[in-house]
Amino acid sequence: MRLALQTIYRQGPTSRAEIARETRLAKATVSDLVGLLLDQGLVVELGTGVSAGGKPPTLVSLAPRSRSIVALDMSAVPFTGAIADLQGEIEDRAEGSGQPMGEEAVEEVGRLAERLVGQATSDVIGVGVATPGLVDPGGTVRSAAHLDWDEVPLARLLRARIGVPVHVANDSHVAALAEYSHEFPEGESLVLVRVGEGVGAGIVLDGRLYRGPGSGAGEIGHVVVDEDGLPCWCGRNGCLETVVAIGALLANASAVLGRPASVDDLALPAAEGIVSAAGHSLGAALAHVVATLDVRHVALAGPVRAAGEPFRAAVAETIKERVLPTMSAHVDVRWAALDADLVLAGASAMVLAAELGVVWR
Amino acid sequence: MRLALQTIYRQGPTSRAEIARETRLAKATVSDLVGLLLDQGLVVELGTGVSAGGKPPTLVSLAPRSRSIVALDMSAVPFTGAIADLQGEIEDRAEGSGQPMGEEAVEEVGRLAERLVGQATSDVIGVGVATPGLVDPGGTVRSAAHLDWDEVPLARLLRARIGVPVHVANDSHVAALAEYSHEFPEGESLVLVRVGEGVGAGIVLDGRLYRGPGSGAGEIGHVVVDEDGLPCWCGRNGCLETVVAIGALLANASAVLGRPASVDDLALPAAEGIVSAAGHSLGAALAHVVATLDVRHVALAGPVRAAGEPFRAAVAETIKERVLPTMSAHVDVRWAALDADLVLAGASAMVLAAELGVVWR
Repeated sequence: MRLALQTIYRQGPTSRAEIARETRLAKATVSDLVGLLLDQGLVVELGTGVSAGGKPPTLVSLAPRSRSIVALDMSAVPFTGAIADLQGEIEDRAEGSGQPMGEEAVEEVGRLAERLVGQATSDVIGVGVATPGLVDPGGTVRSAAHLDWDEVPLARLLRARIGVPVHVANDSHVAALAEYSHEFPEGESLVLVRVGEGVGAGIVLDGRLYRGPGSGAGEIGHVVVDEDGLPCWCGRNGCLETVVAIGALLANASAVLGRPASVDDLALPAAEGIVSAAGHSLGAALAHVVATLDVRHVALAGPVRAAGEPFRAAVAETIKERVLPTMSAHVDVRWAALDADLVLAGASAMVLAAELGVVWR
Repeated sequence: MRLALQTIYRQGPTSRAEIARETRLAKATVSDLVGLLLDQGLVVELGTGVSAGGKPPTLVSLAPRSRSIVALDMSAVPFTGAIADLQGEIEDRAEGSGQPMGEEAVEEVGRLAERLVGQATSDVIGVGVATPGLVDPGGTVRSAAHLDWDEVPLARLLRARIGVPVHVANDSHVAALAEYSHEFPEGESLVLVRVGEGVGAGIVLDGRLYRGPGSGAGEIGHVVVDEDGLPCWCGRNGCLETVVAIGALLANASAVLGRPASVDDLALPAAEGIVSAAGHSLGAALAHVVATLDVRHVALAGPVRAAGEPFRAAVAETIKERVLPTMSAHVDVRWAALDADLVLAGASAMVLAAELGVVWR
């Protein structure tokens, strides 16, 4: 049934005969499967298509609003959440408040999830939560410095509270998956780097999200790049985050502007030196990532987008200058195509894949 | 036939019935396949095993010396080569001379291969060449700074000269494969870092060699780590190689000792500060690799082994200090189990896999 649904999902309106051709299933089997999908309301009949000779075929199509997905993004404060349909279209939004940590952060995300599940106008197939930190495949957050979390079984806690399936993954991991699914041909490799309150990367190798043995792949934000640097959330000094995360950029911009700087101020000419220096630092770290993986696509995302072209250019230039020319000649550094809702898109894609077996692309 | 041979290879002396059980092939098919392998001399009958009730089974076993493999290691000068049997046991060796570059290096490796193929006492199934640089899957060296090579179709040139199949791959890539095959359970991930005249890594992810889209994965030696650093072979300044490759260590050791230092001098107490500093620099670079891949096994290899424990300890400590503790707590940094012949072992394993379909483990 997953196979039939995936085909309908990918092809758009299609006929039972076409699904049989695509899936190599027997026509009778496909008819039975489509019947089940119709019964469940996941697909609808659209009327007849163009005949290839005989009776014109009846087209079936996904019913995107037949189910809802609740997606939560904890990568920035306030936490945000959305109700999405089966095509990832956002139907409603909600926002948390403050900067909760520890138990309070669990409570806040639970409240947000509960509220959105209650607001959904169709059955919720699952809740997808994207969080900073290391998340094991069972949905336990092994550690998340920004939230002061340590071994928090978030998926289990939320499922107990709201009674629908819950999937939890690292924010940058799901973001990379979303960007890959939307923008890249099957089988590509890509590193997506998010710069916001933290810095993290999601890595897709040969078309598959690479999580690493401890689900920590891409945790580049807490690599120490300056032993004499500023203190970091994680307890160390001079992590990459202390140099290039939004907090560092705003502190430096405030000093230059002589007043508290906002994210939008990063686009001011006066902030260009600061922005370029941060891009250079990120590029120096990403040079190692690019040389390690020989990856050709680097996508940048997150609030740092406000810093614009000078930031992207500094990252790209530094990678070019610091990686073997034979390799760096092929490297393309661009802003992620998906913008503000990248992490929410990733969180809902995760639910779609886990609950309906449908790869969102 | 590959499946049957792989089973005999892995199991040691075994019966046709056992092979049928392992491969799930029909007994008659296995008898035919073993017959073919016997005809080709790749396996031999060993007499009878222990009966499980009926007639005692005849055991068949690999005939390791029935074929030869020629392996060449161009990762250091002089180039070295060996004739290995089908179990990787080295039967004979040869050595090139000088420090050839460009066309001369092609000539030298051709001469060495030709000589070893001529010396082999059984049919040579193929030549495996491990070279520094970026090597595409077809055996063309896209670039190798140390050899001044640029788009050298080495596999094709050697095959034309010596008339046996030739396989070419990056030295650190095959070394990682050899170390993984020998030392790690199936499915493990590992980074093997070789430090000699250059610095390079081979990466095995979930039990498979990861080459990267341009075959450049692990090319960490030419990541710039100090923009104001010393000039590098590659034309840039301050690449990791200029700080931690053997040449840099010996130059620094010579300055401290007040005389030209040899590799063995790196074990002297007087050189410990230099060795630790280089280990620290390598560890700082590997922190990025470990954070990117979340890999838990780091194996060190190459001539730098002469520097001993102070080097390994500095690498390990720096990784611990510079990667998120949740991740670095699991990282194990050790010397590769295979020593001097690591690269030759990798080169012959590559031939065995390509020509006989046998994974060497």
